[in-house]
Amino acid sequence: MTAPLHETHPSGPGRRLPDTQQGMRRRNLARVMHTVSAEGPLSRAAVASRIGLTRAAVSTLVDELIRSGLLEELGPERPGRVGRPGSALAVSGHGPAGIGAEIGVDHLAVCAVDLRGIVRARAVRHGTNRGRSPQPVLVELTGLVRQVVAEAEREGLWPAGLAVAVPGLVARDARTVVRAPNLDWHDVDLGPLLPPELPLTVDNEANFGSLAELWLGDDTPRDFLHVSAEIGIGGAVVVDGRLLRGTRGFAGELGHVPVRPEGPQCACGGRGCLEQYAGEEAVLRAAGLSPGEDRVALLAELAAQGDQDVRLALRGAGTALGIALTGAVNLLDPQAVVLGGALAALAPWLRPSLERELARRTAGPACAVTVSRLGPEGPLLGAAHSVVRAVLDDPAAVAGRN
Amino acid sequence: MTAPLHETHPSGPGRRLPDTQQGMRRRNLARVMHTVSAEGPLSRAAVASRIGLTRAAVSTLVDELIRSGLLEELGPERPGRVGRPGSALAVSGHGPAGIGAEIGVDHLAVCAVDLRGIVRARAVRHGTNRGRSPQPVLVELTGLVRQVVAEAEREGLWPAGLAVAVPGLVARDARTVVRAPNLDWHDVDLGPLLPPELPLTVDNEANFGSLAELWLGDDTPRDFLHVSAEIGIGGAVVVDGRLLRGTRGFAGELGHVPVRPEGPQCACGGRGCLEQYAGEEAVLRAAGLSPGEDRVALLAELAAQGDQDVRLALRGAGTALGIALTGAVNLLDPQAVVLGGALAALAPWLRPSLERELARRTAGPACAVTVSRLGPEGPLLGAAHSVVRAVLDDPAAVAGRN
Repeated sequence: MTAPLHETHPSGPGRRLPDTQQGMRRRNLARVMHTVSAEGPLSRAAVASRIGLTRAAVSTLVDELIRSGLLEELGPERPGRVGRPGSALAVSGHGPAGIGAEIGVDHLAVCAVDLRGIVRARAVRHGTNRGRSPQPVLVELTGLVRQVVAEAEREGLWPAGLAVAVPGLVARDARTVVRAPNLDWHDVDLGPLLPPELPLTVDNEANFGSLAELWLGDDTPRDFLHVSAEIGIGGAVVVDGRLLRGTRGFAGELGHVPVRPEGPQCACGGRGCLEQYAGEEAVLRAAGLSPGEDRVALLAELAAQGDQDVRLALRGAGTALGIALTGAVNLLDPQAVVLGGALAALAPWLRPSLERELARRTAGPACAVTVSRLGPEGPLLGAAHSVVRAVLDDPAAVAGRN
Repeated sequence: MTAPLHETHPSGPGRRLPDTQQGMRRRNLARVMHTVSAEGPLSRAAVASRIGLTRAAVSTLVDELIRSGLLEELGPERPGRVGRPGSALAVSGHGPAGIGAEIGVDHLAVCAVDLRGIVRARAVRHGTNRGRSPQPVLVELTGLVRQVVAEAEREGLWPAGLAVAVPGLVARDARTVVRAPNLDWHDVDLGPLLPPELPLTVDNEANFGSLAELWLGDDTPRDFLHVSAEIGIGGAVVVDGRLLRGTRGFAGELGHVPVRPEGPQCACGGRGCLEQYAGEEAVLRAAGLSPGEDRVALLAELAAQGDQDVRLALRGAGTALGIALTGAVNLLDPQAVVLGGALAALAPWLRPSLERELARRTAGPACAVTVSRLGPEGPLLGAAHSVVRAVLDDPAAVAGRN
């Protein structure tokens, strides 16, 4: 199929429908979906008044969306209001679902999210993927995807697409993992190894994490810098509610911003990159701990118990983050820096030194630093929701596909 | 008047006309103007085929644009073509003009650019503005603006608006200079001190310089980072052909990106900012020269003559630029870095060390580094052209104002 799938990805034409009557109709279908999604249940009249179209025009659009299974009528509104009671409209809980998947260094996860944003099915497999070749990993992921799709279908949903979060750089084709150092994958096209019946989008986990923050976070601003850490340091830049992708799709690589240009050699070829000071390995080393599973939980536990070595290591990581973020804040002037992933769990010990560097180095009032509530769930939820958002953004593209 | 004026500024609604028949007409007027501007002279039929509307629809739009003085008919096309000869259309050389102005540290300049992009009038006054209070400077600037407008009017043009480039941070209201350290201006609203009859936009000189690069440069990509230097270091980020402004309008402040976090104290409150290594004063100091006028020309001359101290100083500045740009390139993944302003003149001696740092510190193929051909003219031309672009982007907003 050639229909747009992924509103957040530049290859998705969802945002730029042609300027014709047909394009206008498609945009108006999207406005109805977004309005009901954000404020529903709503009557046809309420939708009409909110989007500034006539009641008759809205009814035509709504009828089409009901026929396509994207909207549902809940029955008459409760009485007592002025005028003839209308039937309240809601986004369908039995229509398309977004399938999100995550290839983590230490796990695989898949979930299905309906148009209402509710997780309706999920599956997880723990165990390291480090050093495994792509094929067995993707065969295993396909098994999890089929399991989740089957579960969603039993609930009356149908999959509108699959979005996969990976810990690496993804080309602008939204399929090819150019480089995932912690998996040791290079130039892997995920397309041929995943279920061919599902329209596919692949993206960096930090990108999906930042989109989850934008869509699901509490009062997330429309301009922010998202910084997360698992094994590496991930960054993503959101400008005016849209992810900044860069020419090759590699924007947001905060982990290799030079912090101390004559500092330790980094695997990227540079010296003194942020990852050399605030990456998981660097922090463990500075704290006198050895690498292993669940090290973030251990760091948080020891820091909470008052372990001075761990606290000092986290303070140093916060300082390095503050220096790198000063440069980023000067360049982008965001409304906030959001700490996600493992950084959210460690924020109590990172944030003071991070904020101190940022405040003394940036002109004017320092940029707000906030902590994500989604934590490590962000990338998976962001992936699934990206498919849901694509349906809301261009419902005409999926209508009739069921 | 409440019509949109400045397409590049977020307050200008030019980009987001309402999704109605009326909005569609306004967008189609803009498409006609842009097509004729980019490819004219063109017949009505040629315009129709390029924008995918019927000949009749285009004729209605063209007639309206001719009546408003935005398009002109050049008379019958040369014979020999198939079909009835049409009259070729061109963008008017006697319609609206963009008035650009620049408040430099050492000069004031004003120019008028017609819809064809030709400079039709200009006025310059040399002499330092450092430490002068805003009022006398703006009175003087108003005098130059009136002089240029009068000259343009004698040529049959009329001013569509005034855009002013300033060496400082400008609030998102596009009127208030929040901070211009080299003028020592703080929180100055330029509106009340400039000609009230001209719709006004104020912006940072680096922003206008980058827009000039985008609009007038040879093969400028749509994603680039523009770095310039006069007294300070200016930066601007262009993403997908649009200037990234930031929450407060302060994005692009490359001069205060930390290069060596424990380096020399900077006036901004930070330490080891880029300006401490690559700003004019720092380079002169490193070369053993004292500040003064035309120091950039002197540096270029001495470097060309083989002066080792000057070459070493410029090499050091290039290294610092390379370190700061590595962070910026990692974050933004632009197609190119464009060196403008004084950096263009010094590029032969800055670029080798700059490119070396960038290549060894960034993963994958290094970002291209190019040199602007506009040099110090960029900000003034960018300002004037921003008014012209606003007219092309929403001709309906100025139609009938003459």
